[in-house]
Amino acid sequence: MRVFIAGVDGYLGWSLAQYLAARGHEVAGADTFFRRQWVEEMGSWSATPIAPMAERLGAFKERYGTELHFYPDDLREYAPVERIFREFQPDAIVQLGECPSAPYSMLDVHHAVFVQTNNITSTFNLMFAIRDIRPEAHLLKLGTMGEYGTPNVPIPEGFFEIEYRGRKDRLPFPRQAGSWYHQSKVHGSNNIAMASRLWGLRATDIMQGVVFGTRIDEMGDDERLLTRLDFDQAFGTAINRFCCQAVIGHPLTPFGKGHQKRGFLPLRDSMQCLTLALQNPPKAGEYRVFNQFEEVYDITELALKVQKVAGGLGLDVTIRNLENPRKELEEHFYAVDHQHLLDLGYQPTHDVEAEMRIMIQDLSKHRERIEAKREVLIPDVRWDGTREKVRFLDAEREPVEAGV
Amino acid sequence: MRVFIAGVDGYLGWSLAQYLAARGHEVAGADTFFRRQWVEEMGSWSATPIAPMAERLGAFKERYGTELHFYPDDLREYAPVERIFREFQPDAIVQLGECPSAPYSMLDVHHAVFVQTNNITSTFNLMFAIRDIRPEAHLLKLGTMGEYGTPNVPIPEGFFEIEYRGRKDRLPFPRQAGSWYHQSKVHGSNNIAMASRLWGLRATDIMQGVVFGTRIDEMGDDERLLTRLDFDQAFGTAINRFCCQAVIGHPLTPFGKGHQKRGFLPLRDSMQCLTLALQNPPKAGEYRVFNQFEEVYDITELALKVQKVAGGLGLDVTIRNLENPRKELEEHFYAVDHQHLLDLGYQPTHDVEAEMRIMIQDLSKHRERIEAKREVLIPDVRWDGTREKVRFLDAEREPVEAGV
Repeated sequence: MRVFIAGVDGYLGWSLAQYLAARGHEVAGADTFFRRQWVEEMGSWSATPIAPMAERLGAFKERYGTELHFYPDDLREYAPVERIFREFQPDAIVQLGECPSAPYSMLDVHHAVFVQTNNITSTFNLMFAIRDIRPEAHLLKLGTMGEYGTPNVPIPEGFFEIEYRGRKDRLPFPRQAGSWYHQSKVHGSNNIAMASRLWGLRATDIMQGVVFGTRIDEMGDDERLLTRLDFDQAFGTAINRFCCQAVIGHPLTPFGKGHQKRGFLPLRDSMQCLTLALQNPPKAGEYRVFNQFEEVYDITELALKVQKVAGGLGLDVTIRNLENPRKELEEHFYAVDHQHLLDLGYQPTHDVEAEMRIMIQDLSKHRERIEAKREVLIPDVRWDGTREKVRFLDAEREPVEAGV
Repeated sequence: MRVFIAGVDGYLGWSLAQYLAARGHEVAGADTFFRRQWVEEMGSWSATPIAPMAERLGAFKERYGTELHFYPDDLREYAPVERIFREFQPDAIVQLGECPSAPYSMLDVHHAVFVQTNNITSTFNLMFAIRDIRPEAHLLKLGTMGEYGTPNVPIPEGFFEIEYRGRKDRLPFPRQAGSWYHQSKVHGSNNIAMASRLWGLRATDIMQGVVFGTRIDEMGDDERLLTRLDFDQAFGTAINRFCCQAVIGHPLTPFGKGHQKRGFLPLRDSMQCLTLALQNPPKAGEYRVFNQFEEVYDITELALKVQKVAGGLGLDVTIRNLENPRKELEEHFYAVDHQHLLDLGYQPTHDVEAEMRIMIQDLSKHRERIEAKREVLIPDVRWDGTREKVRFLDAEREPVEAGV
């Protein structure tokens, strides 16, 4: 299978390129290195050192015995997308090229506009190139579980059968996203569903949970093959940040009451699921939605697990809740279907603690890189539009620095 | 009330500025004249001649005894929006500045991207300017009934109470838009609803039906005060196009079977409804949705009414169905709530035929302008991405020209 990955320099993209190459697929990717710039803009860097792309590509070739066809293009322009499609003739396209950060999108009007237009435009360009150049190709698009929000009813996989005022229909499940970034994913889902209806596009829309993990086995010990691992407020996800905090003895910091429930999955599970979706493409005109996660956890439950695993490795860490910079329900009903991937053969990694152990061991090698950017561990981007570091809830009148 | 109208040079914007000025409100507006360019790009012009803005503004002052504060700015840039808000300090903002055409958005990838990014960006800029400069101001945003699509259940006004697997919630009613333009309106609705939740934005989202009509009474006989009336495939709406066709003896052209049902309303009703919404703003943080139309009609039923009214004016017109360039259900269930505006005091113009009579009389004065662009009356923008004139269904093997 010839797979084109948009955003191949990113956390998921770089991992997926390797996961697929290790299984004999031919991989091309594009990236204009926005993620590196965004993280720098947030005053941070990846905990794992990230080599320049030329080095990454060299290591890739050594490891997998095949080229990663790399295009340093901005996919907001249609011309390069067209050129790549004509040249590489992909059978499948994985859209990992959207900006994935809620706080980044909430910074100000310019970032809100940037995130939504970047995400919409790049996906449009991919959809039109499929329609006009590779109409049988499969678009695998990363959405997020956050598109659904936290309704008071169970969440199905994309669609639900309802009865309303005595009549029945199968309708898209209502989306109630909570940031401009999450909204951009809703916009994308709506656009893709329409392209499937109108043009017969084969599309899989992944409502992915929160991914965590430093590696997949394929990466081995070659540091050039490691994927990035962000811990700043904008690009670091919850467990990844907790593990970085544990490594430098910083308190783990659930937001607010810490009872938000979310679906989570290890990086290796994300790769397994995406590959299963690629190996089992939808029919022409089919728009299918997969809720992709291993299990639902409460944030405090995860912080306690990280604390326990870190303790087992001799790291003594505390948990201190932070004022919540976001506007979200901190206690809510949450029941989410996630059967489609299991039906395709997804074998979940149930041992979350083992995964955390690997992460903390990996991250310990880069303790100094995390320590050097310690200040990014406390967020200051607030959902009300202001920008000010949040405080620890057990010391509300103390500035953050005093509490650390 | 100080009202800022984005898109004040357009069909609705120019009419609303007058409707409000005639009622003593202070009006400012911005426009970068995109609509004039788009219609020209489609090979057409307004049936009513449109004066340059300087002349329009002069006539406005003569008629209403007050200035229309005009800003020739592109609202995709935040700086001018900020400047206008600081200077004019609006109490209400009416967003009529989005590109309103489904076929225009379906032309190609560049138009799809343009329509969605233009519409999203300009609305973002208005929302942020409200948040940061006029937080108590009311955002009145034009959406479209087309956001809902044609589900097999009744359509409420924005939200519905459902029971699903034994649990209950009030959720946004699912949207199933049928063009990139209509999707842009869905994206806007989602964004605005979120801004209300997060920032306390007062917002009214208008799911408007198809507007028709050449005038509101306020315009009188001064041609400089007339609003535009488009009849090309992209910017001409159904009844407006039928009336233009009647005036030059062109067959009226329902698409496909012609049994699509839509909500319609005269231009004067649209003005009345928007003004009612402005006079009765929502509470802080309230996001309310109004389904705004007079009544639901079937397209063929409307073509028959136009035929009858034209006949009464001595015009002999035929009805000939065209191949449908769109992908839409041509026979479907359609029941739509529209109570909110009636509750605010909306008095619908029930005499649709009287309105059509005024239109045909107005348009007869501009017969030559319509005749000169006769070829734009047959669409060629198809929803499958191809571009070729559609054919009359009663002469499927004949080219269109032969059938006219």
